[in-house]
Amino acid sequence: MKQKFFFSPLSIGTCYYPEHWDKTLWEEDLRRMLSHGVRTVRIAEFAWNKIEPREGVFDFSFFDEFLSLCETLGMKVIFGTPTATPPAWLTQAYPEVLNARIDGTLLRHGARRHYNYNSPKYRELCARIVEQIAIHYGKHPSIIGWQIDNELNCELMEFYSESDSVAFRAYLKEKFGTLDELNEKLGTTFWNQTYTAWEELYVPRPTISGAVNPHLMLEYKRFISKSVLSFAKIQADILRAHIPETAFVTTNGLFGNVDNHDLEDTVLDVYTYDSYPNFAYMADAPSDGMRDRWWSRNLTKVRSVCKHFGIMEQQSGANGWNTGMEAPAPKPGQMKLWAMQSVAHGADYVSFFRWRTSPMGTEIYWHGLLDYDNRDNRRIRELDELDSLFGQIKEICGEDYVARVAIVEDYDNQYDAELDVWHGRLVRSSNDGLFAAMQYSHTPFDIVDVRDDFSAYSVLFYPHPAIMTDETIAKLERYVSEGGTLVIGCRFGYKDEYGKCPVGRILPHLPFAGVTVKESTFVNPDGVKVSFGGRLISANWYRDVLEPTTATVLGTYTGDYYEGEPALTEQTYGKGKVLVYGSTFGEEREILDYLGVSEPFKDLIVCARDVEIAVRGKYLILLNYAPTAQICCLSSPLVCMDGVVGTVVEGELELPPYGVKVCILA
Amino acid sequence: MKQKFFFSPLSIGTCYYPEHWDKTLWEEDLRRMLSHGVRTVRIAEFAWNKIEPREGVFDFSFFDEFLSLCETLGMKVIFGTPTATPPAWLTQAYPEVLNARIDGTLLRHGARRHYNYNSPKYRELCARIVEQIAIHYGKHPSIIGWQIDNELNCELMEFYSESDSVAFRAYLKEKFGTLDELNEKLGTTFWNQTYTAWEELYVPRPTISGAVNPHLMLEYKRFISKSVLSFAKIQADILRAHIPETAFVTTNGLFGNVDNHDLEDTVLDVYTYDSYPNFAYMADAPSDGMRDRWWSRNLTKVRSVCKHFGIMEQQSGANGWNTGMEAPAPKPGQMKLWAMQSVAHGADYVSFFRWRTSPMGTEIYWHGLLDYDNRDNRRIRELDELDSLFGQIKEICGEDYVARVAIVEDYDNQYDAELDVWHGRLVRSSNDGLFAAMQYSHTPFDIVDVRDDFSAYSVLFYPHPAIMTDETIAKLERYVSEGGTLVIGCRFGYKDEYGKCPVGRILPHLPFAGVTVKESTFVNPDGVKVSFGGRLISANWYRDVLEPTTATVLGTYTGDYYEGEPALTEQTYGKGKVLVYGSTFGEEREILDYLGVSEPFKDLIVCARDVEIAVRGKYLILLNYAPTAQICCLSSPLVCMDGVVGTVVEGELELPPYGVKVCILA
Amino acid sequence: MKQKFFFSPLSIGTCYYPEHWDKTLWEEDLRRMLSHGVRTVRIAEFAWNKIEPREGVFDFSFFDEFLSLCETLGMKVIFGTPTATPPAWLTQAYPEVLNARIDGTLLRHGARRHYNYNSPKYRELCARIVEQIAIHYGKHPSIIGWQIDNELNCELMEFYSESDSVAFRAYLKEKFGTLDELNEKLGTTFWNQTYTAWEELYVPRPTISGAVNPHLMLEYKRFISKSVLSFAKIQADILRAHIPETAFVTTNGLFGNVDNHDLEDTVLDVYTYDSYPNFAYMADAPSDGMRDRWWSRNLTKVRSVCKHFGIMEQQSGANGWNTGMEAPAPKPGQMKLWAMQSVAHGADYVSFFRWRTSPMGTEIYWHGLLDYDNRDNRRIRELDELDSLFGQIKEICGEDYVARVAIVEDYDNQYDAELDVWHGRLVRSSNDGLFAAMQYSHTPFDIVDVRDDFSAYSVLFYPHPAIMTDETIAKLERYVSEGGTLVIGCRFGYKDEYGKCPVGRILPHLPFAGVTVKESTFVNPDGVKVSFGGRLISANWYRDVLEPTTATVLGTYTGDYYEGEPALTEQTYGKGKVLVYGSTFGEEREILDYLGVSEPFKDLIVCARDVEIAVRGKYLILLNYAPTAQICCLSSPLVCMDGVVGTVVEGELELPPYGVKVCILA
Repeated sequence: MKQKFFFSPLSIGTCYYPEHWDKTLWEEDLRRMLSHGVRTVRIAEFAWNKIEPREGVFDFSFFDEFLSLCETLGMKVIFGTPTATPPAWLTQAYPEVLNARIDGTLLRHGARRHYNYNSPKYRELCARIVEQIAIHYGKHPSIIGWQIDNELNCELMEFYSESDSVAFRAYLKEKFGTLDELNEKLGTTFWNQTYTAWEELYVPRPTISGAVNPHLMLEYKRFISKSVLSFAKIQADILRAHIPETAFVTTNGLFGNVDNHDLEDTVLDVYTYDSYPNFAYMADAPSDGMRDRWWSRNLTKVRSVCKHFGIMEQQSGANGWNTGMEAPAPKPGQMKLWAMQSVAHGADYVSFFRWRTSPMGTEIYWHGLLDYDNRDNRRIRELDELDSLFGQIKEICGEDYVARVAIVEDYDNQYDAELDVWHGRLVRSSNDGLFAAMQYSHTPFDIVDVRDDFSAYSVLFYPHPAIMTDETIAKLERYVSEGGTLVIGCRFGYKDEYGKCPVGRILPHLPFAGVTVKESTFVNPDGVKVSFGGRLISANWYRDVLEPTTATVLGTYTGDYYEGEPALTEQTYGKGKVLVYGSTFGEEREILDYLGVSEPFKDLIVCARDVEIAVRGKYLILLNYAPTAQICCLSSPLVCMDGVVGTVVEGELELPPYGVKVCILA
Repeated sequence: MKQKFFFSPLSIGTCYYPEHWDKTLWEEDLRRMLSHGVRTVRIAEFAWNKIEPREGVFDFSFFDEFLSLCETLGMKVIFGTPTATPPAWLTQAYPEVLNARIDGTLLRHGARRHYNYNSPKYRELCARIVEQIAIHYGKHPSIIGWQIDNELNCELMEFYSESDSVAFRAYLKEKFGTLDELNEKLGTTFWNQTYTAWEELYVPRPTISGAVNPHLMLEYKRFISKSVLSFAKIQADILRAHIPETAFVTTNGLFGNVDNHDLEDTVLDVYTYDSYPNFAYMADAPSDGMRDRWWSRNLTKVRSVCKHFGIMEQQSGANGWNTGMEAPAPKPGQMKLWAMQSVAHGADYVSFFRWRTSPMGTEIYWHGLLDYDNRDNRRIRELDELDSLFGQIKEICGEDYVARVAIVEDYDNQYDAELDVWHGRLVRSSNDGLFAAMQYSHTPFDIVDVRDDFSAYSVLFYPHPAIMTDETIAKLERYVSEGGTLVIGCRFGYKDEYGKCPVGRILPHLPFAGVTVKESTFVNPDGVKVSFGGRLISANWYRDVLEPTTATVLGTYTGDYYEGEPALTEQTYGKGKVLVYGSTFGEEREILDYLGVSEPFKDLIVCARDVEIAVRGKYLILLNYAPTAQICCLSSPLVCMDGVVGTVVEGELELPPYGVKVCILA
Repeated sequence: MKQKFFFSPLSIGTCYYPEHWDKTLWEEDLRRMLSHGVRTVRIAEFAWNKIEPREGVFDFSFFDEFLSLCETLGMKVIFGTPTATPPAWLTQAYPEVLNARIDGTLLRHGARRHYNYNSPKYRELCARIVEQIAIHYGKHPSIIGWQIDNELNCELMEFYSESDSVAFRAYLKEKFGTLDELNEKLGTTFWNQTYTAWEELYVPRPTISGAVNPHLMLEYKRFISKSVLSFAKIQADILRAHIPETAFVTTNGLFGNVDNHDLEDTVLDVYTYDSYPNFAYMADAPSDGMRDRWWSRNLTKVRSVCKHFGIMEQQSGANGWNTGMEAPAPKPGQMKLWAMQSVAHGADYVSFFRWRTSPMGTEIYWHGLLDYDNRDNRRIRELDELDSLFGQIKEICGEDYVARVAIVEDYDNQYDAELDVWHGRLVRSSNDGLFAAMQYSHTPFDIVDVRDDFSAYSVLFYPHPAIMTDETIAKLERYVSEGGTLVIGCRFGYKDEYGKCPVGRILPHLPFAGVTVKESTFVNPDGVKVSFGGRLISANWYRDVLEPTTATVLGTYTGDYYEGEPALTEQTYGKGKVLVYGSTFGEEREILDYLGVSEPFKDLIVCARDVEIAVRGKYLILLNYAPTAQICCLSSPLVCMDGVVGTVVEGELELPPYGVKVCILA
């Protein structure tokens, strides 16, 4: 992860759609934004028609006028390429640019993101408009950065057009060279699926029961990611030929079937994210779990892609479409809380979605800072508070989030867990469990991509990577032998890189773990747990019965036919050690405590369970997700950065409902 | 609402399918009907093949024979045009007449209503057969009226054929004139949906997430209604050219995406309805709510369309298809109860569906008066009881239902609430709540279309009209200033007639209400209520925090961040007043009591909760929906019209389980 | 039912896929199987490409090598025709061979069973490869039998290709001769569905609400069965022309829309079944009911088709696809228990699915005897135990299952119950109830097809045959008059053979039952029961109120408007009697007790509720489905065949959790 661009200093932006408003509102809007601390607007990402109203006819007058006003008033701009919403004239003339359902039904004009990445015609038309825009606006003094398209792979991350089949064949040909190689690597012998001509290969098509070759599906997901990257790269390359070095290229991402790390490394300068914690309060959202606090995990994932990122769309009001997703207005404090949640996890720029709620279209309930009535409201008041706080902590930009523990992730296993319901269940269960364990024990953690450097962490969790390559094992072996602690869960490494299950491989596929799996089973919910250090911890969905060769047994199962059998083992290796857990990880903190990594700041502050603690450099940030005030106990006085700056707090520190505190570490 | 035809005197009919039975059964069936008081049969609405067995070949011998028998025996006939079920030869030859799913899949022969209204070919073939029938039977002495098609828009009220797109384009062109106007009014700027050629416009097509421009969708619904009306008008015009003035034209309606008021006003002479309260007892029906009593609301809606209507299909036996909708047989008394529920609400003709249960096809479980075994049964005995009662109250025809309270409805908001899940939730919640409040407080009410006259009502509820036009506001202002009381709920008027949300509009959009909405939010179920007059009343799904300018606060919220804030206000204006409620209406009667309109007959009779009371002219009708006997207390003696006619009842009046009483007001 | 082939002696097999493994594993695998008692392998059923890698090019070298090894080592082989999975080259060249969804969407290469039975091209290509295989391997000394295709109609039992419509028309033409006859018999008058040309007839196509003519649907199901049989017969005829008389032809069946009795009688030599009781423990399986014990009903149905059958695929490990169906590993004992459940019900051959778990494809979680790690495990140890037991009871082959009670079934009603939700609910309810009643009262029973001989049974249940032909009534009359007891449930015989409901037919349609149905109704769950002999028994979903003419009332309803009315009657007729029950049958044993057929072995042994008892000839088999030990009490000593052979057990016999006992009757 080499980051090419940093936002600095910490600042506020918003998303603005000049095309949604009468021009007479523009100046008032921009002046009002500036008066509330909004210094940047993101524009144009759905405005193809405003620039190319008919095929090949370009007209820049609309944005010329708006950008000229921005320049005059001193508003900075992030300009979006408009390729997420092709015009009606385009899809009417070239239906081959459309994405399709798996049965071939074309997805038509009327919503957004209805194109496919692989249509040569769409690539040509996108390249042309991006080039026209880049030539015309590339050096505009107000534009500080460029957003490619909008939310690549949002809403739908599967593509079934004819162009996709053509491109998929090319991808497979390049990867495997020969059909013999493809057939062998993808296990097509099963159910007689052997391919004898490249033309027999397609993106997934309708089958009985929806079953298809899972190994080909894994390649399909990798292919989609490649498609996204190559589509984005066309635009990035064109932009870079015309914009100054000081302007960045980004996209607002973190959707499925994309290797975001690769996207960041090879296409973008900086990564931005759209953060909507209010999804946790939608009418059909589950009422248990971490709710909005879960977004800290998403933000941790974003930080894994890009250490110092921006928020391109930060929740301001209620969200919803006219067709669904009803969610309440954020309660007083939540808008600020969630913005600071982003900052706590590495955001150096926070742009609210959106200035004023759309008066039309599908998103009339995706509320902005202002409502239709255009009056000042409590969100504007919270914006002022945030602006004031941002002013006080503006130096936080570039400061690193502090964590000694990390969870290893990789795209192969992410894709596989989406395809394979057995694998997926384990991953979701441990993701939930580990995140809760970390949060409740106030243990900051990172997510680290398997390709990145592990050396910063004393403890790594790698819960259930079904797919395990030799290189990864070698890397883990190096990490442990040099002093790291590796904790792995059940089903470690039973698949090769194509998702096949090698014959004769003994699990867990980690030779230096000092343990093997004697037998193992999926389980439906039952009461069986693992007894560990006098406590009972969760062991859901799957149980590997362990058989130590050299490892020590730390925990055993409490029931069923494997009652008393080993469930948790520990093996020292080199300077480090490996713990193997035969099941999924629960929200209990016992393993973190055992490894001595929980509550790293407990000598400084003891927080209530509902409060998240995050440290970026010298900044200590406390976030209260609860609807009631929470008390944190300080061991020594701290200087507080919000409210009256410089106030020293000591003893009991009360966070109001949904409240935030930022202090300075000595 | 100008009604052109009245049924009189009150009478019983049935639906008969001569084509389902061996001709040898006809005479016995007709004689048996007449002996049980059935004086009219509805026929022919699914019998195209019996008249035009091959394209262009007409043969009237089948119905000649049947109608001749009717004439001989004195049975009156309502003749249905057979256009709801095109023959196999027709759809095989002209697949363009078929309706389609949104993805273009044609809906084929094998069920019913598989045609589209806009196919020129289908219109031509329908016009031809209707004209042939009208010429041949138009003056037949037994025929008293004509039914157009059958249940227009039943089962499916969306149309996606190519003919529909062609017609939709013409509709839009006529309405908007230019694409610029269309683009502006329909807010196509959002997500770059601007249209640059009429050919780019279609009926809805598949999109990602199913989202489409909601304003275009609203036009689409209006367009479907227009399509229904113009399709029906072709037939009505042909019929009228050939039938006597004494014969009526009707259709059996009240389905979605139709402006039934307009249909009644411009196409029909009288409106008929198909009433199936047993739907409330289907295996998958919700077990809470008003169950069969809810049909009183449907009948109120029918009365809004046509003050004195007919029931073309009245529940007699169990209903169900072989593929679903299992419902039990009506319990002893329910058939009569439900027929009298229709009469109580304005029906002057009640035709049971159907004489004898179909021995074949999808509807073998849609039971008629007789079962397959053809024996007399308890439904026939109830029919006799009803016939006797009808004889005693036959003068009820033309008598008006008595109500001082009305709920305002309009099609714009009805359509919008079907498209917009936020709007829809509110409407459903208040419809349920208000209906229960009216019923439990024995407060008869009307539904009044926004275009109709309000002057008969002392109190109007207009719960959640998201769409609000200037004319409507002016009309409401007149109503209130002249002494009316208007009660409105949350979200009043935030949309224009296209469903867009005007910028700068302050809510509620009712200048003389003396109150504004400070802030507002969707809410998931929680315990918060409104404290009003010492009681707590429901406030579900949405909460507007009110800010009175000149209005008085009557009620406040009991929790959350708006605890203690105004929730119900009152403003006097002219001779009347406006109450604004910040949420949805619940089943509590407090607002009705406060306004003094509940229990208007309480000086005469105090009814049990499970008994509905209705008054038509001098007739007082009591309906017991409960499986147990219910007691009503009379303040003075009343003359009873059922059982032994003229019996005077006083003191405690017991209604048997599912029982009915009709009394005469002094 | 004339069985043409018997497995003997009792033996173990497995399913092996030589094409899934490196050839270097073959010899080790075969030797290892033989060392654990596996004497037969089923091969090749998904291996078309291994024999015809390109159209018209045949290459037998792969299986030559494998079969030669089998011959050398003494392994017997069942060879499968590979037609369940056409190669990619085939479906790419001839898409007309594919099955389709009802909307015409073709079901593509990538899963299995994606062909249609009626494509002339597919029949031609299947015939060719089967003939090539038969010529080449027909007389191979290792091959003892042939499996046609694999699981005909598994996963999907509906076919909507164009070839199917062509064949369906031919079927209808042959059956009905004229369109007039078809229209009349199939009641097409309803909803004007009359056909005027054969070309207007299709396999079902999309319609509004999914409703189609139910009588045509019934023919469609009969047609699918005919299609399966004629497809299978092509292969069977070819095979028989080339194989020795000692080799059998089978298929592994019991899927829907197939007349399995006809298939067995006219196409096969012996029937085999795939038994997976672990389905009862899948993550989404209902947690109530008989769970794995339910498979005894399936096996009873198999026995109805073929008295002495084989299990082609017997559950060994966990089952699941990567896309779903997660189920746990069978617990210790269950694999053996389920194998013995098969034997107890008539299996003379048990072939485990599969030797080693597939390392690739959709079925990586459909575990075999061995896991990917290829180590011996507890399933191999259970296999050894089973091999030992099989050795001790190998003479059981050909011994008949002992039952005095039977449930009558027929395909007309089975198909109708799948189409007609009213009928289906009753059938499912009584199937569940009667099976539980039989099991809990330890009453072995058979299922007998309506075409088969009833004389072996003293009591017949024929719960809810909606369709009833005159021949069947005559047969039942003969059965009863000769001394049998017939017990029928509600809704007996209200339909003719086309599923239409004849007018004037009095129910129950059984003249000698001495009772009629006065009225009847579907009911939602309520508390009403039937009072019978001082006990209350279940009466769910439907209630016929009975009116005896000559019958005696045995039971009455306990509630609703038919409280106290007859619900169970008895009529003696000839030497026998008929009981009519007005509802569905519950799990109470009262009717069995009343008829004196429950617990036929109670003088010998009294079993715990969780233990199933089965007798084949002199073999008494006890099966404990519970996770805890169960006690059975013996009245006299028995010789035990498992564990130490010949051990005499007496008094209390303990079955361990999931345990099995086989004893010898004196």
